[in-house]
Amino acid sequence: MKAHIRVLLVFLLAAAVGLGPGTEAFAQTDPLASWNDGPAKQAIVEFVRATTDRSSPQFVPPAERIATFDQDGTLWVEHPMYTQVLYCLDRVPAVVKQRPELAKVEPFKTVLSGNREAMAKLSMDDLFKILAVTLTGMSVDEFKAEARSWLDTARDPRWKRPYTELTYLPMIELLKYLRANGYMTYIVTGGGQDFVRVYSEAVYGIPPEQVVGTAGGTRYGYDKSGRPFLTKEPKLLLNDNNAGKPEGIHLMIGRRPYAAFGNSTGDRQMLEYTKAGDGARLAMLVLHDDATREYAYGPALGLPGTKVGTFTQALYDEAMKQRWTVISMKNDWRRVFAFE
Amino acid sequence: MKAHIRVLLVFLLAAAVGLGPGTEAFAQTDPLASWNDGPAKQAIVEFVRATTDRSSPQFVPPAERIATFDQDGTLWVEHPMYTQVLYCLDRVPAVVKQRPELAKVEPFKTVLSGNREAMAKLSMDDLFKILAVTLTGMSVDEFKAEARSWLDTARDPRWKRPYTELTYLPMIELLKYLRANGYMTYIVTGGGQDFVRVYSEAVYGIPPEQVVGTAGGTRYGYDKSGRPFLTKEPKLLLNDNNAGKPEGIHLMIGRRPYAAFGNSTGDRQMLEYTKAGDGARLAMLVLHDDATREYAYGPALGLPGTKVGTFTQALYDEAMKQRWTVISMKNDWRRVFAFE
Repeated sequence: MKAHIRVLLVFLLAAAVGLGPGTEAFAQTDPLASWNDGPAKQAIVEFVRATTDRSSPQFVPPAERIATFDQDGTLWVEHPMYTQVLYCLDRVPAVVKQRPELAKVEPFKTVLSGNREAMAKLSMDDLFKILAVTLTGMSVDEFKAEARSWLDTARDPRWKRPYTELTYLPMIELLKYLRANGYMTYIVTGGGQDFVRVYSEAVYGIPPEQVVGTAGGTRYGYDKSGRPFLTKEPKLLLNDNNAGKPEGIHLMIGRRPYAAFGNSTGDRQMLEYTKAGDGARLAMLVLHDDATREYAYGPALGLPGTKVGTFTQALYDEAMKQRWTVISMKNDWRRVFAFE
Repeated sequence: MKAHIRVLLVFLLAAAVGLGPGTEAFAQTDPLASWNDGPAKQAIVEFVRATTDRSSPQFVPPAERIATFDQDGTLWVEHPMYTQVLYCLDRVPAVVKQRPELAKVEPFKTVLSGNREAMAKLSMDDLFKILAVTLTGMSVDEFKAEARSWLDTARDPRWKRPYTELTYLPMIELLKYLRANGYMTYIVTGGGQDFVRVYSEAVYGIPPEQVVGTAGGTRYGYDKSGRPFLTKEPKLLLNDNNAGKPEGIHLMIGRRPYAAFGNSTGDRQMLEYTKAGDGARLAMLVLHDDATREYAYGPALGLPGTKVGTFTQALYDEAMKQRWTVISMKNDWRRVFAFE
């Protein structure tokens, strides 16, 4: 029997036992079960239909299906402080042990004091100094091991859980739903690329090569036995915030996304860039308006924003004007966390 | 009938009609048909077996299967001059038309003279000046359109064919063979990332997001109608040569490759870095020793090298010492080009 006849036969047999589309073999529960019915869920489902249905005028070939997600405040909790900043603050004592001269210098003195109120007042410049000494100077492998160990042991004070469990269930469902429809799901974060890559695969199902983040340079060298290794350098290559997001997308992906998801002014340019492409494009912003189940913050709600990225009134106005979809955490999400 | 019983039934039926492994339905011609039997082909086949056979102690999970390929001289012809440099030289008249002041300044004066002998003597500094003005200052989309149009019309003087046809058939087979075995195949080139991305998918089956190359910054801005776009800036972010190759791999991929392929000193660190990982690792160097079918050059053959990357005697010695495999174009390749 010729091979192609055999293949045909198997298809016919499969059809005979009911394995065609539309039968219960393909029946499944709602892939977006944690989303309430409403405009946000509808926008997602309609976008996926328009771009994956071969008969749609807005059909997108699988190779071009790119979706980009901000992380902090979009995929997991960012309030009251970014997880990576907490990591860096926790790393300060170990760094000072190696470099005792830092103990008497600000901002390290304040961090070592443990005074949370004083720490909350640190400037962005102070934070950058802390990030520089806690995220660079070690080998790439040492950094990975340290970050992994911290993530395994650190607990969020409100939920008493590892930070990696504070991801939003509706967004995890959305990532899976898009991937099931042929989309490559990228993280495009203002956070450190190397930090997020440590857990992105386990937590989001996103491999390291699909994480774009703020990135420093590395330096290639050899250890005493001649084995090559990379050292993390305090040299900024990509500040993956604001205009840095589309710039980073071009650098790392080289294609314009069809869908982009964010929650703050730091995501504005990524959403604009996404929407400026031809055909169906989806741009969505998570609004933190659920003080009970998570947090409510941001000037769009008449409340103070977070330290860096903020959902401002101007961003809200642009979203309305550009027909971006605002996701109300309170109204659009049936559940917020998987552990609840 | 329960869905999983149905699925089982289909597998059983498939087996019944002979669609199991080892039958003629899976019989196929040699995926590396353009390779002669010998140590190079053997090293490839053995590496793939060792890393993809589940019972092998050196088995590598599919998500970690990364192979990186230099381009110029490894995947396509680089002699006597890199294709991208030819593109830049051809672009000079159009740039001078826009910026007439350059006509009286070196190295542009020499390029405009059309004197090939004088052009061959241009220094690396001169080349960088030419690259800077011909590869930056336009939008990303304009650049893509220009490069595509040049690639469609330019012809190599020896073979009278588009440059994109001057790829090595054995290496194209190798890319496909690795992908068929679950490997992601990345280009890691000293050439311009944006340039290679224009044709990588059509020519190598490698999508833009799997091209790592020398990369400049872009600048996000808006046109008169408020539409956002990216402009190519003369700011070097990644010099993807020598130590820049493992650094670029860390930046863009975030995993160490299991296999790496190059042909010059510019690939040395990438091969070292690849081989320094645990388990089975494959490092190979293409030696251009076929003056009849392609070219013979490089100090390893006692001949002058190319302008930039060169197969030096020191590289040859390191390859022998580190047990990298040298691919002799003359002896290991049954065919060189698909068009022959």
